[in-house]
Amino acid sequence: MSFKEDTINSEMIYKGAILNLRKDTVRVKNGISYREVVEHNGGAVVVAITDNNKVLMVNQFRKPLDKEVLELPAGKRDGDEDPKETALRELKEETGYTANTVRYLTKFYPSVGYTDEELSIYLCTDLTPGETDFDESEDIEIFEYDMDLLVGMVLAGKIHDGKTIAGIMIANEILKKE
Amino acid sequence: MSFKEDTINSEMIYKGAILNLRKDTVRVKNGISYREVVEHNGGAVVVAITDNNKVLMVNQFRKPLDKEVLELPAGKRDGDEDPKETALRELKEETGYTANTVRYLTKFYPSVGYTDEELSIYLCTDLTPGETDFDESEDIEIFEYDMDLLVGMVLAGKIHDGKTIAGIMIANEILKKE
Repeated sequence: MSFKEDTINSEMIYKGAILNLRKDTVRVKNGISYREVVEHNGGAVVVAITDNNKVLMVNQFRKPLDKEVLELPAGKRDGDEDPKETALRELKEETGYTANTVRYLTKFYPSVGYTDEELSIYLCTDLTPGETDFDESEDIEIFEYDMDLLVGMVLAGKIHDGKTIAGIMIANEILKKE
Repeated sequence: MSFKEDTINSEMIYKGAILNLRKDTVRVKNGISYREVVEHNGGAVVVAITDNNKVLMVNQFRKPLDKEVLELPAGKRDGDEDPKETALRELKEETGYTANTVRYLTKFYPSVGYTDEELSIYLCTDLTPGETDFDESEDIEIFEYDMDLLVGMVLAGKIHDGKTIAGIMIANEILKKE
């Protein structure tokens, strides 16, 4: 079986700072349907491990949830930036660390039903500390965790950020196998 | 430290079928800023394990990516439906199976930067086969996989759906510990 939804019409509803919204009219098996699509430039997620074997985490207020969320360092691509550069830049901005070793782990789509957002996950090691450089509207706290504790927090339902669950669980399995 | 972004103004830009988009003006530490927020009703993700120990997966065309994506069964809540009911309903609709045992694993936010979407993950076992009942505009293929193979596919970068990565990796760890 092969599926495909041809686009009959595409209407741009909103062009914004971090996302665009469009509404596509598509041909489906029994006629036509509509697809609301959030266009997003994608980004990178960083599993950064310090020389004393701690994972860097950040705590940040997230307006959509109106609360602080504990996450891996991450951020959006600047224009057509390579996601590896995004990873290094965001790690430096949010935690101050520069990574001398960067390894691509995987990429994933956070919410395939309505957005094209794609996030690449990188494992960063051989870190050198430095100054942070937050976005002017950000307020970020930095924490260090043992990987085992983070995995336990994921399994106990205490980590609620999707990209952080993916990054932690994948990096933990890959590191265990080495 | 405690962060909070008070909303000064909130403008509804679009009210749609599966999402709304609003733009909030918020107070940040150095002045005001804007937050684009996609409102989503949330949903459920199902790790369903058959009596012969296979995990049910579905293949579905996803317009935002213009390709088919291999995923765990999942779907949006109907109105204020309990996510557990969403899980059972979507499992039945997409795979035909009815689950006699349902266990909540965790919930997570797929993309905290711009959406309030929340997904709850359930482990469904003690399955009874039956007829599927797809949404009229959906076309879905059903597959059965060994859990070990799925974990291997996640680690090899061959599963790209965020909720599926979370569901597989968490269910695998929890089942291994039992």
